[in-house]
Amino acid sequence: MGSLNTENVLENSSAFGGVTNPLDPEEFRRQGHMIIDFLADYYRDVEKYPVRSQVEPGYLRKRLPETAPYNPESIETILQDVTTEIIPGLTHWQSPNYYAYFPSSGSVAGFLGEMLSTGFNVVGFNWMSSPAATELESIVMDWFGKMLNLPKSFLFSGSGGGVLQGTTCEAILCTLTAARDRKLNKIGREHIGRLVVYGSDQTHCALQKAAQIAGINPKNFRAVKTFKANSFGLAASTLREVILEDIEAGLIPLFVCPTVGTTSSTAVDPIGPICEVAKEFEMWVHVDAAYAGSACICPEFRHFIDGVEEADSFSLNAHKWFFTTLDCCCLWVKDPSALVTALSTNPEYLRNKATESRQVVDYKDWQIALSRRFRSMKLWMVLRSYGVTNLRNFLRSHVKMAKTFEGLIGMDRRFEITTPRTFAMVCFRLLPPTTIKVCDNGVHQNGNGVVALRDENEKLVLANKLNQVYLETVNATGSVYMTHAVVGGVYMIRFAVGSTLTEERHVIHAWKILQEHADLILGKFKEEDFSSW
Amino acid sequence: MGSLNTENVLENSSAFGGVTNPLDPEEFRRQGHMIIDFLADYYRDVEKYPVRSQVEPGYLRKRLPETAPYNPESIETILQDVTTEIIPGLTHWQSPNYYAYFPSSGSVAGFLGEMLSTGFNVVGFNWMSSPAATELESIVMDWFGKMLNLPKSFLFSGSGGGVLQGTTCEAILCTLTAARDRKLNKIGREHIGRLVVYGSDQTHCALQKAAQIAGINPKNFRAVKTFKANSFGLAASTLREVILEDIEAGLIPLFVCPTVGTTSSTAVDPIGPICEVAKEFEMWVHVDAAYAGSACICPEFRHFIDGVEEADSFSLNAHKWFFTTLDCCCLWVKDPSALVTALSTNPEYLRNKATESRQVVDYKDWQIALSRRFRSMKLWMVLRSYGVTNLRNFLRSHVKMAKTFEGLIGMDRRFEITTPRTFAMVCFRLLPPTTIKVCDNGVHQNGNGVVALRDENEKLVLANKLNQVYLETVNATGSVYMTHAVVGGVYMIRFAVGSTLTEERHVIHAWKILQEHADLILGKFKEEDFSSW
Repeated sequence: MGSLNTENVLENSSAFGGVTNPLDPEEFRRQGHMIIDFLADYYRDVEKYPVRSQVEPGYLRKRLPETAPYNPESIETILQDVTTEIIPGLTHWQSPNYYAYFPSSGSVAGFLGEMLSTGFNVVGFNWMSSPAATELESIVMDWFGKMLNLPKSFLFSGSGGGVLQGTTCEAILCTLTAARDRKLNKIGREHIGRLVVYGSDQTHCALQKAAQIAGINPKNFRAVKTFKANSFGLAASTLREVILEDIEAGLIPLFVCPTVGTTSSTAVDPIGPICEVAKEFEMWVHVDAAYAGSACICPEFRHFIDGVEEADSFSLNAHKWFFTTLDCCCLWVKDPSALVTALSTNPEYLRNKATESRQVVDYKDWQIALSRRFRSMKLWMVLRSYGVTNLRNFLRSHVKMAKTFEGLIGMDRRFEITTPRTFAMVCFRLLPPTTIKVCDNGVHQNGNGVVALRDENEKLVLANKLNQVYLETVNATGSVYMTHAVVGGVYMIRFAVGSTLTEERHVIHAWKILQEHADLILGKFKEEDFSSW
Repeated sequence: MGSLNTENVLENSSAFGGVTNPLDPEEFRRQGHMIIDFLADYYRDVEKYPVRSQVEPGYLRKRLPETAPYNPESIETILQDVTTEIIPGLTHWQSPNYYAYFPSSGSVAGFLGEMLSTGFNVVGFNWMSSPAATELESIVMDWFGKMLNLPKSFLFSGSGGGVLQGTTCEAILCTLTAARDRKLNKIGREHIGRLVVYGSDQTHCALQKAAQIAGINPKNFRAVKTFKANSFGLAASTLREVILEDIEAGLIPLFVCPTVGTTSSTAVDPIGPICEVAKEFEMWVHVDAAYAGSACICPEFRHFIDGVEEADSFSLNAHKWFFTTLDCCCLWVKDPSALVTALSTNPEYLRNKATESRQVVDYKDWQIALSRRFRSMKLWMVLRSYGVTNLRNFLRSHVKMAKTFEGLIGMDRRFEITTPRTFAMVCFRLLPPTTIKVCDNGVHQNGNGVVALRDENEKLVLANKLNQVYLETVNATGSVYMTHAVVGGVYMIRFAVGSTLTEERHVIHAWKILQEHADLILGKFKEEDFSSW
């Protein structure tokens, strides 16, 4: 430290006199109450903000200083800046007019649970470091597993167990690593380059990313093609064919990830038949029910995960459609020891009697990170605050609103439902006007509102462009926010109901905006040369 | 849905009448205020609780029901259960008497930031999904980088950039994956089995775990031996020798992870010399400053990261010793494109104009998961609420208290400082009584308080056992909590100052308890046959 030693002094001599401890209970109380009111007002007013942020890239760097302040600033100043600088840059996922991606359904109970977890701020890497954090997680995962009617083999009260991860990507990476090492420990590590991972062309990109991270050769990742005839579900027979080809080529099938509720269209892969194929080739099956898994607490949806008893692991995101704030991915596994074998480390500084007694779970060995938040607190509070009955009702109310929206779309001939609605998301598109036709002679005509196209493909390209422009104009209003997907070559608009504050009046409002802009864009379409679009 | 269709009804007909929306602003306000008071009282009273939880494995399962409740329960009931069932099972990381592991230093500002982040509950996977979340993160990482005097090559205002991850494990896994793919893209994927990862025998287990997950052959993980002569820092010359042996054996050096502030004893690896070796062999250098990095905002500590300008990446945990609640790992990289190449996925459903403009950062490609919380909010609030000046003072006050404790230990001949104190952690042990001697004749004697041992090794084993029993009795009081490490064969007690509420009086109190129990255990030692220990 030598020459710099003179600087080793307190820069503000009042640090131990005038300056308040950064965790002073009364200051905590004062500022905490301010933020509660700030957020309660935010929820009350959230409808007033443009749902999708309207800022331009780089907006914030222009508004904030280039360096951190040297001196403290008051909470009042900071909250003022949150209002003027941050809120305009937010896309309001909690807005009742939010229908984009999948919901991140907040709730009072989820928020309070996060507050308690943050307040206690324990680091529950093993049982010892905070027994309640570990034990509550195991209990809550059993509760939730029972609500889903998961087989006992996935529960601690059976022979398996559950763990809370941050996201599905992490859950898949952990199970894939477990599957990989179980296989390599049998056949030898030198075969890592021959392992193959399977999903469909509708599987979430998390699978591909997990495979990349786990060192699977990128050439050995299979996105098996799906078809409209199967509602874009992964056909077990097609999977089997692809696997046989790989085996023929000297590769080794490792892992398959069927989805219950795909991101693009909430398609459901048939778990049972896929597990049968996987069994034949000794593969690990992970069921990704990130979005739709929650719905399976309702008896009428449970059949979508039939066959899960044959899978190795199952996950869903409580932070998507289960009122538990980000992040909270629930993962159940049949064979926790496979996870632990692949992910455990036992440094001396973490040795303790409880671990050595083998009577406890040390969750650090079930996940990527060592440190972990007390996530079960929020899930526990959600389950208790609402109870099974209201949770089912909340989910059903979203499905009901999606059905209402589906009905409205269905009554307007200018629109088309593009893929079947299964849960609370409706996929649709605006059809090109009937004045657009494919002509055998392939002659382009424009004028008098009649347009002829060369072939169906050109019509599809035009329809896709039409919907892309349409969606952008709708979102640019700020009144609603939806996003898109392309499935089977068709550009479609996804309308995902699930934001907690959404009520039927908001869905009707969204429909009105969609109609208005359909009028506008179809009118414009007649007047303009579409080739410039 | 067929036969189950009859169940597809609302179970509680009041769901859209009597039942409150789960995100009702006024209910949020009412319950939110309750929790603030609950937590403020917790901080006020936290000193009263046993620091380390005193429950037995399985305590909670006996106390909680086996299934989730069917009907809702009130917040009052739940909070009562938090008090009676959860708090006894917590180890109180926020207690001023907490000196275990490393601190998880909470603060009012960190808590408020987490509340805002949870309240907005945005999912900032790319810029588009909530521009403020991305932009504030980039800005705050530049602020913090400047406070640390990191070279411009690590900042967005230079040619690099920073990202907030959950933990160091994730930061290392991401950089290791980037390093691995950069290398394999050059030399061919078939060489994955030849890649070698280097740390020291003091490196955090996160490195080994990351290597396991990334598919590095477990045989190719090197924990290079450290020695007391170097204060258990990794000697660059030893590293070079190990690398040369590996190359000789046909292996390929990939990645080395020097630590600034090791977990066991806060040893510092010499970054500059290690980078020189790494350069020679074209390896990626990641600097893990998880604990001690924060201190480098004080000029007198900055020299510990000298040489970082030659590293590829650098990380520290703001949730350890920087008043930012769990989790918040700050990672800076020189070459963001290496991360993006290894970790990006670009599904159609996330395509958007901003990404295509290439004017924005999409943080999903800088980390494992797609979904991500708005973590920069809390770091921003910490930096602004306290300012550089108070943050430095807070850290210095911890160092000062550790020095005080070191002085107390040093004045009592029954104790020994085992490794040099560098930051705010003191490593020490209780020495076996002077009546214990190693006798040349190797004869055991017991009685009259004189004990003779065969050799120095037996003496070490005895001393280690003594300290293990000693630490357990001290922790069992519930008045303080410390943990241990074994370095160079010596079992030592770690006294890590850093819990936000800790004041000098707590340190003095801890010292008194240590003294009392030293008296007790040394007295007992004389009376008993130590071989039964």
